Amino acid sequence: MKLKELAQWIGGTVVGDGEVEIHSVASIEDAKEGEITFIANPKYLSKLNQTRASAVIVSPEVIPGEKHLLCVKNPYLAFAKILTLFTQKPYQSKGIDSNAWVSPTAQLGEDLTVYPFVYIGDRCHIGDRVTLYPGVYVGEDSSIGEDSILHTNVSIYPGMTIGKRVILHSGVVVGSDGFGYAKEGGKNFKVPQVGKVEIEDDVEIGSNTSIDRGTLGNTIIRRGVKIDNLVQIAHNVLIGEDSIIVAQVGISGSTKLGSNVTLAGQVGLTGHLQIGDNVMIGAQSGVAQDVPANQAVTGSPAMPHREFLRMIMTMPKVPEMRKRLTEMEKRLNRIEEKISLDKEEK
Amino acid sequence: MKLKELAQWIGGTVVGDGEVEIHSVASIEDAKEGEITFIANPKYLSKLNQTRASAVIVSPEVIPGEKHLLCVKNPYLAFAKILTLFTQKPYQSKGIDSNAWVSPTAQLGEDLTVYPFVYIGDRCHIGDRVTLYPGVYVGEDSSIGEDSILHTNVSIYPGMTIGKRVILHSGVVVGSDGFGYAKEGGKNFKVPQVGKVEIEDDVEIGSNTSIDRGTLGNTIIRRGVKIDNLVQIAHNVLIGEDSIIVAQVGISGSTKLGSNVTLAGQVGLTGHLQIGDNVMIGAQSGVAQDVPANQAVTGSPAMPHREFLRMIMTMPKVPEMRKRLTEMEKRLNRIEEKISLDKEEK
Amino acid sequence: MKLKELAQWIGGTVVGDGEVEIHSVASIEDAKEGEITFIANPKYLSKLNQTRASAVIVSPEVIPGEKHLLCVKNPYLAFAKILTLFTQKPYQSKGIDSNAWVSPTAQLGEDLTVYPFVYIGDRCHIGDRVTLYPGVYVGEDSSIGEDSILHTNVSIYPGMTIGKRVILHSGVVVGSDGFGYAKEGGKNFKVPQVGKVEIEDDVEIGSNTSIDRGTLGNTIIRRGVKIDNLVQIAHNVLIGEDSIIVAQVGISGSTKLGSNVTLAGQVGLTGHLQIGDNVMIGAQSGVAQDVPANQAVTGSPAMPHREFLRMIMTMPKVPEMRKRLTEMEKRLNRIEEKISLDKEEK
Repeated sequence: MKLKELAQWIGGTVVGDGEVEIHSVASIEDAKEGEITFIANPKYLSKLNQTRASAVIVSPEVIPGEKHLLCVKNPYLAFAKILTLFTQKPYQSKGIDSNAWVSPTAQLGEDLTVYPFVYIGDRCHIGDRVTLYPGVYVGEDSSIGEDSILHTNVSIYPGMTIGKRVILHSGVVVGSDGFGYAKEGGKNFKVPQVGKVEIEDDVEIGSNTSIDRGTLGNTIIRRGVKIDNLVQIAHNVLIGEDSIIVAQVGISGSTKLGSNVTLAGQVGLTGHLQIGDNVMIGAQSGVAQDVPANQAVTGSPAMPHREFLRMIMTMPKVPEMRKRLTEMEKRLNRIEEKISLDKEEK
Repeated sequence: MKLKELAQWIGGTVVGDGEVEIHSVASIEDAKEGEITFIANPKYLSKLNQTRASAVIVSPEVIPGEKHLLCVKNPYLAFAKILTLFTQKPYQSKGIDSNAWVSPTAQLGEDLTVYPFVYIGDRCHIGDRVTLYPGVYVGEDSSIGEDSILHTNVSIYPGMTIGKRVILHSGVVVGSDGFGYAKEGGKNFKVPQVGKVEIEDDVEIGSNTSIDRGTLGNTIIRRGVKIDNLVQIAHNVLIGEDSIIVAQVGISGSTKLGSNVTLAGQVGLTGHLQIGDNVMIGAQSGVAQDVPANQAVTGSPAMPHREFLRMIMTMPKVPEMRKRLTEMEKRLNRIEEKISLDKEEK
Repeated sequence: MKLKELAQWIGGTVVGDGEVEIHSVASIEDAKEGEITFIANPKYLSKLNQTRASAVIVSPEVIPGEKHLLCVKNPYLAFAKILTLFTQKPYQSKGIDSNAWVSPTAQLGEDLTVYPFVYIGDRCHIGDRVTLYPGVYVGEDSSIGEDSILHTNVSIYPGMTIGKRVILHSGVVVGSDGFGYAKEGGKNFKVPQVGKVEIEDDVEIGSNTSIDRGTLGNTIIRRGVKIDNLVQIAHNVLIGEDSIIVAQVGISGSTKLGSNVTLAGQVGLTGHLQIGDNVMIGAQSGVAQDVPANQAVTGSPAMPHREFLRMIMTMPKVPEMRKRLTEMEKRLNRIEEKISLDKEEK
């Protein structure tokens, strides 16, 4: 494609030669002639004239140099869309492999791709164009919406609901029992976990993430939520639309997140919390209290992000503060002694 | 069942109409007529008169209102038992699917349920009424006690021992090599890991949890232990009876836990520690020293829980303390100057 | 074998009777006659005369007692090598099981061991003497170097490269999509992840660890790296040779580690960092800035390890410091009052 065609398609402006031919996308370091790259972070602007890319996607503020530029408001989004354009292949059904085990009572959509060693249980609904990679298990009475992709060894416990265009990466577990026990004379009596998991449309979940079923009622992942690898979602959690949950986060039972929430890596949330819309929680934070909408909190225990920054700046100064404190006490002692001496002298 | 029958079965007292028919259990928000719910946490008592449940399990202190009550000392345990009563189905063997791979030298119990794509290695012992879901691997010379359930894609390395009534959720790995290397000229020489894992009776382990085999000797999970999802148990760890290990905890090599220990979410323990009976360790704590029995510790590094609470209360005050310190030094300087001036004046 | 033969083989010295017969290796507590054990940590020296082992591997400084000793500079390495000697079995090919699914276009080496329910995709290269356990998936166009072992349910996404003598434990995922989205009007637009993962020779990776493919370009794990269980490696990360990554570490996108780096358990690294050669990062640390070579850092946020130790020593003293501060302010007030009174008096 020509640069000007890409610009038109993406809604951007060419600065330079729009006739340049672009055939693929690469990183700023690896790009070669015929490739387009991008700069989303101003800190990489110094690389603009070093790259061998034929064109660079930048924001409109960038001062033009030797390179052909494609100027757009959101260069990262434009890059994502152009990369999608160049790499997305049309879906091709591979059919149902004879080494898969499919219940005769399952309702199968059209144009499926079902690999060997897949298990589809009784009374499942599998939507059109669903892809199930080797080792996928779909327990009885579960449903998978159309165009969803379940990578290898994904486990869907019986009775779960997965929406459309959902992507589950390898090793994701949906519907394992929530962690609930009642103490009885020092022993742990298992609380049956009979709720379900509902995963709505356009959700993506990273590899080896665990999502427990509800005790009663459901664990719910709303439309557009993106969850990274090795995340723990406990029973009866609700994650609001378009939220972002980064790797190794743990969310305890019955905690509810609003929409557009961001939890950075390794965050832990205790149970029964309410986290408001648009909340951002910094990496490794430990949250034990509700967080109202539109707040940024960090720390363990979590506090407003600015307060956290002030706190951690002074933390390493505490040993020195302690010395100053002791020094001042000595000076105070001397002064008090002196004053009382003065008095006596008088 | 009638409410009075449930009361009799659970050992509680009816306040209200014992003839009310109860056919299932639901959460306080979702309960409808004919259903029973529970209040274990006093903070939810305000919902008592709003629920549409026909009866509510409560503790004896609750003041009766319009609702029919089932009063018991431990409402959560009573709820768990009634839920079990209403939801537990009798075990039904599904037999051994012809798509499973079973070694001719394996010793199989009676009334098994073995799904497609299960692998049972040479000389394994599989107890009566064991359920092995699709993708389960039981390596040679391993044994699984009766009535145990191994969910999809559980991996049991060769030579491991699993007790009776054990539940392993999807993706659990039992017996992967411990993480041991000896440095040799800057390179890492692998220390062979030739020990085993022993999991005793009535243990439950959450999805995607990893339990490494011992280097020499065994990693041991004692009777009644409950482990949540995504937990890391290193080589030669011992977890005492009835302990509770919450999600994403990591326990390093050779650390020994007493019985009835509770590790909250995301706790990390270094290696070679002794953690006493009944110890409780707060979420996200980092423990690098032994903890004597019956203590509650929190923090990273961990300290007595009360000390931790005092500490985190004052932490955010440190920046202000630093300003006060500087302010006081100025005042001290002025005073000292003044006093010496006074002296000179004299 | 005789003790003197082991000494010769390992390059050590016998103190005691070199004719003693040794037939296996055990821990210092469990060792019996005919077994050798080791003491690598001086803190266990008190056990030297209690063990029933026939011989003990120790460092040359140890003062001889009743036990036959094998003295070497690095007892732990010697132990590892002797344990390897006693436990390593020669490789025996089991062939390719008829219940595996192998693409006709895959190029297979000699003397393979391929278990049931393995999937080998189109155009894969599988080296000589590779072992693929049940449930392993090797996506199309991937290659596995000779003598590598992939344990049960390992997933290799299409197009990945695995070196020689690599060990991947159960549930490892290599090549899941990196976590990348561009915001578009409040929704998350998926950034295609079209890069690969390269794992070089002699790497070992623990169970349930996730390694994402690059967005563009590759995620790279260099020769000799050892990664523990449940670790998260994001897109475009590079881990330098012989580095050690302990359990539950998370490394964010595009962060580059030098060689011989050690990350202790549960460490988190943000994205786009440069971590120099030989850096050591303490357990549970959170690193958000570059770390130059040869440094030891700890804490969240991370700081030089000594500074961290000083800081955490004084942390619990902050509540008391605050009281002292208030007390001193009162004393200052009294003094200032007194001085001005004195003045007035004059």
